[in-house]
Amino acid sequence: MKQVEVGIIMGSQSDWPTMQRATEVLDALGIAYESKVVSAHRTPDRLVAYAKGASERGLKVIIAGAGGAAHLPGMAASMTELPVIAVPVQSKALKGMDSLLSIVQMPKGVAVATQAIGESGAFNAGLMASQIIALSNNDVKQRLIEWRSNQTDSVSEEVE
Amino acid sequence: MKQVEVGIIMGSQSDWPTMQRATEVLDALGIAYESKVVSAHRTPDRLVAYAKGASERGLKVIIAGAGGAAHLPGMAASMTELPVIAVPVQSKALKGMDSLLSIVQMPKGVAVATQAIGESGAFNAGLMASQIIALSNNDVKQRLIEWRSNQTDSVSEEVE
Amino acid sequence: MKQVEVGIIMGSQSDWPTMQRATEVLDALGIAYESKVVSAHRTPDRLVAYAKGASERGLKVIIAGAGGAAHLPGMAASMTELPVIAVPVQSKALKGMDSLLSIVQMPKGVAVATQAIGESGAFNAGLMASQIIALSNNDVKQRLIEWRSNQTDSVSEEVE
Amino acid sequence: MKQVEVGIIMGSQSDWPTMQRATEVLDALGIAYESKVVSAHRTPDRLVAYAKGASERGLKVIIAGAGGAAHLPGMAASMTELPVIAVPVQSKALKGMDSLLSIVQMPKGVAVATQAIGESGAFNAGLMASQIIALSNNDVKQRLIEWRSNQTDSVSEEVE
Amino acid sequence: MKQVEVGIIMGSQSDWPTMQRATEVLDALGIAYESKVVSAHRTPDRLVAYAKGASERGLKVIIAGAGGAAHLPGMAASMTELPVIAVPVQSKALKGMDSLLSIVQMPKGVAVATQAIGESGAFNAGLMASQIIALSNNDVKQRLIEWRSNQTDSVSEEVE
Amino acid sequence: MKQVEVGIIMGSQSDWPTMQRATEVLDALGIAYESKVVSAHRTPDRLVAYAKGASERGLKVIIAGAGGAAHLPGMAASMTELPVIAVPVQSKALKGMDSLLSIVQMPKGVAVATQAIGESGAFNAGLMASQIIALSNNDVKQRLIEWRSNQTDSVSEEVE
Amino acid sequence: MKQVEVGIIMGSQSDWPTMQRATEVLDALGIAYESKVVSAHRTPDRLVAYAKGASERGLKVIIAGAGGAAHLPGMAASMTELPVIAVPVQSKALKGMDSLLSIVQMPKGVAVATQAIGESGAFNAGLMASQIIALSNNDVKQRLIEWRSNQTDSVSEEVE
Amino acid sequence: MKQVEVGIIMGSQSDWPTMQRATEVLDALGIAYESKVVSAHRTPDRLVAYAKGASERGLKVIIAGAGGAAHLPGMAASMTELPVIAVPVQSKALKGMDSLLSIVQMPKGVAVATQAIGESGAFNAGLMASQIIALSNNDVKQRLIEWRSNQTDSVSEEVE
Repeated sequence: MKQVEVGIIMGSQSDWPTMQRATEVLDALGIAYESKVVSAHRTPDRLVAYAKGASERGLKVIIAGAGGAAHLPGMAASMTELPVIAVPVQSKALKGMDSLLSIVQMPKGVAVATQAIGESGAFNAGLMASQIIALSNNDVKQRLIEWRSNQTDSVSEEVE
Repeated sequence: MKQVEVGIIMGSQSDWPTMQRATEVLDALGIAYESKVVSAHRTPDRLVAYAKGASERGLKVIIAGAGGAAHLPGMAASMTELPVIAVPVQSKALKGMDSLLSIVQMPKGVAVATQAIGESGAFNAGLMASQIIALSNNDVKQRLIEWRSNQTDSVSEEVE
Repeated sequence: MKQVEVGIIMGSQSDWPTMQRATEVLDALGIAYESKVVSAHRTPDRLVAYAKGASERGLKVIIAGAGGAAHLPGMAASMTELPVIAVPVQSKALKGMDSLLSIVQMPKGVAVATQAIGESGAFNAGLMASQIIALSNNDVKQRLIEWRSNQTDSVSEEVE
Repeated sequence: MKQVEVGIIMGSQSDWPTMQRATEVLDALGIAYESKVVSAHRTPDRLVAYAKGASERGLKVIIAGAGGAAHLPGMAASMTELPVIAVPVQSKALKGMDSLLSIVQMPKGVAVATQAIGESGAFNAGLMASQIIALSNNDVKQRLIEWRSNQTDSVSEEVE
Repeated sequence: MKQVEVGIIMGSQSDWPTMQRATEVLDALGIAYESKVVSAHRTPDRLVAYAKGASERGLKVIIAGAGGAAHLPGMAASMTELPVIAVPVQSKALKGMDSLLSIVQMPKGVAVATQAIGESGAFNAGLMASQIIALSNNDVKQRLIEWRSNQTDSVSEEVE
Repeated sequence: MKQVEVGIIMGSQSDWPTMQRATEVLDALGIAYESKVVSAHRTPDRLVAYAKGASERGLKVIIAGAGGAAHLPGMAASMTELPVIAVPVQSKALKGMDSLLSIVQMPKGVAVATQAIGESGAFNAGLMASQIIALSNNDVKQRLIEWRSNQTDSVSEEVE
Repeated sequence: MKQVEVGIIMGSQSDWPTMQRATEVLDALGIAYESKVVSAHRTPDRLVAYAKGASERGLKVIIAGAGGAAHLPGMAASMTELPVIAVPVQSKALKGMDSLLSIVQMPKGVAVATQAIGESGAFNAGLMASQIIALSNNDVKQRLIEWRSNQTDSVSEEVE
Repeated sequence: MKQVEVGIIMGSQSDWPTMQRATEVLDALGIAYESKVVSAHRTPDRLVAYAKGASERGLKVIIAGAGGAAHLPGMAASMTELPVIAVPVQSKALKGMDSLLSIVQMPKGVAVATQAIGESGAFNAGLMASQIIALSNNDVKQRLIEWRSNQTDSVSEEVE
């Protein structure tokens, strides 16, 4: 079995339909991942355990998604030296503007890598994780370059 | 020496000029408090220790202020059953709109009591803490009623 | 019959589907409450009577919800020394951003304890009321601690 | 002495530099006015007395200015059948967007006549009051038409 | 036949479902009105003719509604000394925030009386017109006071 | 003397420090222009005359700048078939967001060519006017291509 | 076959239902156009080729539409001296506010002509292109003047 | 001489005071970097050359900062498989909200790792680059862990 290199965590089960998009590029490039519900607010101890143990368990990147007052990505980043990629999940009233601002506006000293609001952001989180892993894995790098090339080819110039 | 009943915490030393306003009503009503820098991001263990130990140390209310992607109030609230009063500190670029949304938009299950952005909010955080403490302390209640009455009297009708 | 300790008021009958969520934690912890329509704008005298009489009637906390130019929570707070917990009800055009700002941006001297926009905020208003009451009621405190623990246990780590 | 026809009220002494601009057109057209500090939050009884007594005292229009969670215009309007012209005073953090939304987004059934944020809005509040009074005062109407004509003439086409 | 006292104009036929709400209080109080499509952008000459002729035709108040880059109310106000009440119609993408700002932020020297976004605002525009007309028409004033009293009575305290 | 091809109009004398930037590229490319204060609100007749007469006077492009509830560009466009380039001037409270939305959100049927808020937008308005004129003036086209090339060359790669 | 004078490009096939509206005025005035998918991000080389070759191929105007972080119009404008008209396509979470700001806030030195968010903006992009082409094509100019006149006539004054 | 691993690019010389903060953690951890002005709009060819050549030149991470309609990070990301970390530089009128949205809202298929607006974001961009490089460089990893630990120790609990 492959070493899990990417941990996908989310604040609530209801974030999964969004966060599932993060697995698409990982699957395409053959990168192993795990996905778990870790609520910063309702399960703070689980968050501490997950973030502090991630590096030792061999993870290379954490992808964290949450909505509203979204504290999961920043709090995870505060407890690991691994890069944390953040996905602002679209919220009901404010459409993810709250999620975005509570994720991206991190103070000096603890960083997250914020993606777009919602499904596009989750998809790109998987892509960004792959780009990071490709830096130290030549097979992944070759598959990533090919994936990018295929994507370009798939954009038909014709409008229909 | 009086039992400290209100813990004022803030994400950064630079929040103190704002958060200091929280002490005004507490001082006026004779409520003992403490104030500390507890950064959710740079000192997550200190936050865990503070929030989990607050109730046992005899605190009744926590006032937490932070700016930008402000995670301190919500994370404190996730680790104590005490009421947490939150102050969105005005941020540089977005003027506290980021602070406000990342504090107030808490998901179902963990609550904070959000005040206005900046110094007025900090002042009112001390007032709200006093109102909560007054529910179980008749002396504080009498002083609070008198304080409110004096405030009303102090509003001159004349424009100058 | 139990003493009513929490008064839930709202600006319009149409706010009830949102504000009803405030009763969930109160019910779970056995705290008695009442709920009424009190419009700041259409029934200002009712508001004055309600807010001024609340403390004497034995209420400990007021939960006030309103949408749009939401003046109910702040006006109630201006006429009672009891803590007022505020719920910005989601509005049609601006999705509750108007409700939020007209509630949370209270000036120095009169405070409300603002929750999130909409149903999560209403749910948390009931929780915050319980946290405040728990400070002077040990039975409620024990049930609150248990409720919080159950909530944590109920968050399954598995995504489905 | 002339009958006072316009009542200018504001939530705080600090609103006067803004609200003073409301007197310019009134002075120019010879309309008598009064100006007072009436805080919706810190002096709610004064607000009730002022709004309920305004019509009987012979006022025709109320101009009300406030900032932040600005409840003064809407609450005044809830207690008088007179037209209430509202001025959102520029606030510190959110630059008056909070003032504007908490004034203009009134629910069906109680109306205010909202002007622009800040000094231009205060100036125009005096103008709008004059336009309303001109409907039943032919002298004011003639002076208003002349004032408008002079204003047009004063706009030089040349840039300098 | 009664003298038409209120002119309701709107930028597009599609604004009518919103603007129609402006007729409710006018109907209830027996105030005669007319309603027309006058597009500031597509029929600028019609706008000039309407605004410049309104006073002479005996109108007392103009109610103008428009959405998006809504220029109708301000442009009408620039060409008449009558009070213009403005309704920001809810737009598709920005939900009326564009309509609101392009109506309310009038420069010093030309005023409109802005109402809330959408149907509540249109309803209140009719109410505000009635309040203005009531100043010089005692019958309307009595009916307005009664209408307000009935409205207050109709707000049931019970939640259902 | 050269035929004036670009008319620069602005809502107020105070817009000139911003709008003056529109002349830079015009000067550089040798395009003749005029500049005038034309207030949509305070001088509506001047606006009508200017916009309706522009084409006949030989103008090819109108550049219109205004701030706040900025109606000048859209209203000018409603009365001429010439392209109107619009500059949202930065406003005091809302920093030009009001200017931008009241200019750019034009309804179907009347178009303006909106630039960025403030001085960059004014500069680019002159550039866009030049690009349009270059389509039918080969000398201007050659100078424009050269100006663009010089601009590219002037961007030093070194940070200092 | 007519010389194609307008190139309509868009960032994604999914933008076509919006961008198709740009063809309406072009069709009505008999202006030839082409439409293509050119993604700034997924097909950057195609963008470079398209923008750099446009002028030589005889295009006079480029209409570019994109949503979210919309870079297509600005990047196209950086590589051609032709006027680029930009359409912010409505995005899912932020309703086109992101599209608008990422298009309109161009820095000094490279200009685009921004239209309204969504279908109205796309329609007006075709109109603006026609207005620009009409400057050097008298037939188009006459048809444009007639089109504008017909549009004015089609606005019925009656509300239905 | 050390292999340069991080390329810091910015849209304008005026972004350097902000972007310079990105060098602090890189310097502290001994990571070699270069910094250049590469304007997406004024020097598009330079951007193409830089982005396409970065991987081959041995860079591992690109940090790109820009303000307003900030297209540099996304366009760079479209032409390299390297991770691109993005810094929204604070803009004049909209305070960086335009920079943020035009950077973070990338469509599915091309990702950037967005940081906070302004100097904190630039500082964190350097930190995030270090975290990524640490994944394949054990020396950097040890220094990073130590840097983080020092940062935690430097946060004094005392308010002053």
